[in-house]
Amino acid sequence: MSMDITFLGTGSAYPSPTRGASALVLRREGECWLFDCGEGTQTQFMKSHLKAGRVTKIFITHLHGDHFFGLPGLLCTLSLQSSPDANKPPVDIYGPLGLRNFIRRSMELSQFKEFSCLDGDEVSPQGAQGRILQLDPVENSYLLVEDEQLVLKAFRLFHRIPSFGFVVEEKPRTGKLNVQKLKDLGVQPGPLYGKLKDGTAIVLENGVTISPSDVLEDPIPGRKICILGDCSGVVGDAAVKLCCEADVLIHEATLDDTQEEKAREHGHSTPKMASEFAKLCKVKKLVLTHFSQRYKPAAQRGEGDTDIAELKRQAESVLDGQEVTLAEDFMTIEIPMKK
Amino acid sequence: MSMDITFLGTGSAYPSPTRGASALVLRREGECWLFDCGEGTQTQFMKSHLKAGRVTKIFITHLHGDHFFGLPGLLCTLSLQSSPDANKPPVDIYGPLGLRNFIRRSMELSQFKEFSCLDGDEVSPQGAQGRILQLDPVENSYLLVEDEQLVLKAFRLFHRIPSFGFVVEEKPRTGKLNVQKLKDLGVQPGPLYGKLKDGTAIVLENGVTISPSDVLEDPIPGRKICILGDCSGVVGDAAVKLCCEADVLIHEATLDDTQEEKAREHGHSTPKMASEFAKLCKVKKLVLTHFSQRYKPAAQRGEGDTDIAELKRQAESVLDGQEVTLAEDFMTIEIPMKK
Repeated sequence: MSMDITFLGTGSAYPSPTRGASALVLRREGECWLFDCGEGTQTQFMKSHLKAGRVTKIFITHLHGDHFFGLPGLLCTLSLQSSPDANKPPVDIYGPLGLRNFIRRSMELSQFKEFSCLDGDEVSPQGAQGRILQLDPVENSYLLVEDEQLVLKAFRLFHRIPSFGFVVEEKPRTGKLNVQKLKDLGVQPGPLYGKLKDGTAIVLENGVTISPSDVLEDPIPGRKICILGDCSGVVGDAAVKLCCEADVLIHEATLDDTQEEKAREHGHSTPKMASEFAKLCKVKKLVLTHFSQRYKPAAQRGEGDTDIAELKRQAESVLDGQEVTLAEDFMTIEIPMKK
Repeated sequence: MSMDITFLGTGSAYPSPTRGASALVLRREGECWLFDCGEGTQTQFMKSHLKAGRVTKIFITHLHGDHFFGLPGLLCTLSLQSSPDANKPPVDIYGPLGLRNFIRRSMELSQFKEFSCLDGDEVSPQGAQGRILQLDPVENSYLLVEDEQLVLKAFRLFHRIPSFGFVVEEKPRTGKLNVQKLKDLGVQPGPLYGKLKDGTAIVLENGVTISPSDVLEDPIPGRKICILGDCSGVVGDAAVKLCCEADVLIHEATLDDTQEEKAREHGHSTPKMASEFAKLCKVKKLVLTHFSQRYKPAAQRGEGDTDIAELKRQAESVLDGQEVTLAEDFMTIEIPMKK
C-alpha cells in the first residue's frame, strides 16, 4: 500500500512565491489527508500532482492564520467543483476549539451553507454532528481516527496558543506464513494456508491442531508518521512515547540555532531543538519545515537573507551524521511499507 | 500626478496558478487602494511590482469568498511587517454589511487584536470607530471618500447578493492662465499670476479689477475610473450617471456571450452585456476581468477550455471597433492626466 507525503507550503508566518503557508498532504492509496491549510493551499494543490478533490480529512494544528486561512476558500472550491454525490463522504475537519465557528461563519457569509460534520468546538443546532474530542488522561493524547488499518492521535505542543502534533500509525500486519514449518507439519499449500493467515486454527486429518501462532512469523509493524504543528517543545510525556521510532518526523524549524532565544520567545524551534526531539524519539527520518521566509537557497539570497543550508548543517550536527531533509514546496517523500 | 491600475487577480470563483482571485490596485502617487482581496492577494502583491505596505484603503465589492478570503491573511501580514508607527494612518476598509464582523473574528481567532477603524456593519464596543454608510437617496449612491483632490462613490449592482461598483473621480483642476489675455490687460508675469490661479481677484494700479474667471481657461476635468463588482446589471439609475464618460471602466465578463442565460442566472455578465453598459455610459476604455477559469489563451487551452480571445471579439463587436482590453494578472494600465 503506497504512502507518501507532499509539502504544499513550507514557509512560516505568511505565504510567499517561493514558500506557501503551511500545508502538507499525507496520501495513502490515493486518499489524501491534509495537515494545515494556510492561505493559497488550493492553488498549491493545482500546481502539484495532487487533486484537492481527493481530500477526505483535514487536520489543523493550531489557529494561527498561516495554518488555516486557506480553509474557507478550499472548502468553497471543493463544494463548487464536486457534483452532488450522496455516496461521497463529507470531508471531516479536526482542529482546535474555535475552528468550527470560524468555518461556519466564513461559509455562511460567503453563502455556502452546506456543511455538516465538523469536529471542533461548541455544538449548535446546525452542527449537531460536530464533536468535542476529550483528552485520554492516561495516554495524554486525543484519539481522532481509528479504522481497521490505522490510528491517528493528537498530542499537545508548547506554543503561544494551543497547538497539536499528530501521529499516524498503521496497525501491524499479520506476519508471513513459515512455509517450511507448514511443509514439515504436512500441510499442503491451499485454503488451509489462508485460514491460518486469517487467524483461524486448523485440525489436520491426523487430529493435530495447528494454531496460527505456530506457523506465523512475527507481525510486521506498520509505518508511523509524526506531523507537529508550531512548537518550542512538547507538553507532557505523550509525545515522546507516541513518536518513538517513527519512520518520519516532520518538525518545524522556524529560525536557525543562532536565534534560539527569539525562537523560544515566539514558541518556535530551531534545527537543534528539532533534532534533539528526533534523537529522543529515535526517529528514522527527520524533515524540517516552516522556515522563516528569510532562509533561502544560496543562489536566491537577497539582502538580509540567510543560506538555508545552514539549518540542515545545524540539525545534522546533533544527529551523529543522520541525514536531515529540509522540506520544499511540492517535495514528495515516499514511505515504503515494511517487509 | 501618476495614476495606474494593476490587476492582481482576474479569475472568477477561485484562484488558479494562471489567474488569481479578484484583486486590483489603483495607485495614485505611490498610494495604493486595493479593490477586492481574494485568497492569495498578498502573494500576488509579492509577485508584482507593488508593495502591499503601501495600501491605505481597501474596498470590497461583495461577500463572495473569491473577493475577500484573502483579507485576514493580508491584514495579518501587514501587521507583522510594519513597525509600530503612530504617524502611519490605519488601513481603512469599506465593504458590505457583515465584513467587519468577519474580519474581527478572523483576527481575534488568529490573535491579532490591533485594529480599530473598519467601516462596515454593526457597532461594537471594540469597534466604535466603524461607521455604517447611508445611501444618498437623491443620487442613489454612497459617498465613501472625499478629499481635496477626489471623490469615491459606490453604487449598487444586480447580483445574487449585495454587490457594489465604485467610481473614483478626480475633481477638476483649475484651468490654465490665458497669458495673452493677461498681457493685453497689462499684467506682467509675477506673484499676481499665482493669486489669479489660486482663485483670488486682483486690482491693477489703474483701478481695474481682474477676476480669475476673466483670465482662466476652462477647468481641466479629472480622471474617472469605474470598478464594478460581480453583476448582471446595475440597480437604479445611479450607475449610468456616475460612470458617464469614464476614462476606464473595469467590468466583469465571467462567461462568453453564448452562455448569457447561465451568466444571468448566476448574476454575472458576458462581454456583450459589459460592452452595452460601456456604450450607454460612453466610457473611453473598457477592460474586462473576472473570467471563468475555462477561458485560456489559445496556446494554453486544455480539454473543455475556450479561447479567451473570443471574449474580446464579442465585446468589440458591440463597440463599433473601439478596442476592449482583457485583463491579465499583473497587467498595468496607466491613466494619463488630462491636459
